Amino acid sequence: MLNFADRLLVTVEAQRSHVVVGLDPDYSLFPRQLRTLSPNEAGDPVALAERFEVFLRGILEAVAGIAVAVKPQLAYFEALGAPGYRLYEQMVAEAQDRGLLVIADAKRGDIGSTAEAYARAHLDVAGADAVTVNPWFGTDGVEPFLRRAREAGRGLFVLVKTSNPGSAEIQDLSLGDGAPVYEHVARLVDTWGAGAVGECGYSSVGAVVGATHPAQAAALRAAHPGVLFLVPGYGAQGAGAAQLSGVFDSNGTGAVVSSSRAILYAHRSRGGDWQAAARDEAEDMRRALWASARGGGES
Amino acid sequence: MLNFADRLLVTVEAQRSHVVVGLDPDYSLFPRQLRTLSPNEAGDPVALAERFEVFLRGILEAVAGIAVAVKPQLAYFEALGAPGYRLYEQMVAEAQDRGLLVIADAKRGDIGSTAEAYARAHLDVAGADAVTVNPWFGTDGVEPFLRRAREAGRGLFVLVKTSNPGSAEIQDLSLGDGAPVYEHVARLVDTWGAGAVGECGYSSVGAVVGATHPAQAAALRAAHPGVLFLVPGYGAQGAGAAQLSGVFDSNGTGAVVSSSRAILYAHRSRGGDWQAAARDEAEDMRRALWASARGGGES
Repeated sequence: MLNFADRLLVTVEAQRSHVVVGLDPDYSLFPRQLRTLSPNEAGDPVALAERFEVFLRGILEAVAGIAVAVKPQLAYFEALGAPGYRLYEQMVAEAQDRGLLVIADAKRGDIGSTAEAYARAHLDVAGADAVTVNPWFGTDGVEPFLRRAREAGRGLFVLVKTSNPGSAEIQDLSLGDGAPVYEHVARLVDTWGAGAVGECGYSSVGAVVGATHPAQAAALRAAHPGVLFLVPGYGAQGAGAAQLSGVFDSNGTGAVVSSSRAILYAHRSRGGDWQAAARDEAEDMRRALWASARGGGES
Repeated sequence: MLNFADRLLVTVEAQRSHVVVGLDPDYSLFPRQLRTLSPNEAGDPVALAERFEVFLRGILEAVAGIAVAVKPQLAYFEALGAPGYRLYEQMVAEAQDRGLLVIADAKRGDIGSTAEAYARAHLDVAGADAVTVNPWFGTDGVEPFLRRAREAGRGLFVLVKTSNPGSAEIQDLSLGDGAPVYEHVARLVDTWGAGAVGECGYSSVGAVVGATHPAQAAALRAAHPGVLFLVPGYGAQGAGAAQLSGVFDSNGTGAVVSSSRAILYAHRSRGGDWQAAARDEAEDMRRALWASARGGGES
């Protein structure tokens, strides 16, 4: 069985793409032709979930073959309650049917017995290929996810340095030895991944490292060569391809980069057909990242 | 509108109880008469969710009037997928119908726009009275929950020092000034709660502080007098009432204590009717905590 890192990086090479599309459905930003619910219907989770489904299915169709993975953001599904949760499970399956890997952006974390239930929920029941995990609980909170990663060829991405401004408040605190807290977490990630290294040299225990902190990301890249990066914050959050060259290794691999709104709602800036706009935006991102990762070469 | 802290602490006084019952449904531990699913059915989320419903409804009936709140642990509901998520929403409503407050143990945390969706999901759509929140993202990840707390009289409990052994790995790290990371987070909680202090003197921004660390909990209690504590780890995780006197203030209030397995599955140790066993276990816990909080006095 191929491990998750191998599956992901083989796809990166095959598609010449580091693109992950975040699925953050927001009805108010949908294309006009999908925003036809009456005010009453727009407050009904079932009606909204049906629109989410049409929209997300269109996005999957648009970005398949360009993106290597999609990253459903659980919060936007949970905000519709049970109908949203069902849609999340359905979208995992439909994305995989289209050849896209699925990273469940759940950011779960809890004590061991509970983390076990979360690992089952997202990696078994929903069937995602990988899940994002919050490190706050330490090793016993991460262990159940590690077990599923090893046993079932799944992956996890630990929140090492997140893309938001407030991330500095805890993650950047200086420890007694002068290192920031996030660097300590990155060292834990090295340890957690030691038993899950694939043929590609990367482990299935990756790290979330925000695109909005390019210098810190490059330093982390250099210090933790076996750790796969999931890099959010591209596009709408402000980071571009040029400043991201440091998240890739010298072979131009070892990281995937995610963008949500800039792709999903590309029709708002690019105009025209919304699916074509999403596809064009994803393709532009693919080319820009490929050039950045491979030192400005062939795209 | 009463704020969450006021609502909770008024109930504590009225019921002479600091007891919170964690809802961690685990089919394998259910009473024998509910464990009658065939192996096929036991793998079916819908069939399992129906058994969860019968069991949890029985628990709500048993502990109403003794516990002040229940704490559904989202992981165990998510592990059944959409049918489990629907049951979570249903149990929130049924618990409130029985006069129990509901603390959604979701431990969510994300960047601002996403945290907004999580706050909506749990405090509005599911309708819980409070939610547990992971502090890793810093202020902008907590702000949307704070807003709901202020606007709608809801509460949050920030994971300051969790009950599991691995909590030491990140939460106990020493910062440059010698303080542990969790103490820094407790100071952030003071700040976050400053605008949400109720008539009781406590804010609706509380802290999760594990019962398994009584000395650290007592130190936090002394240093953060306006912060309501939610104290997990009582019972099955090993902490007893005697060692918990330090989590209460000098009036014997300011904290609620949660127990999950020891109450839910009390029939396994106490025998007899499972609802009666849960009720007796909760009542024993109530008396022991009341005595501990009020200095061994009247129960």
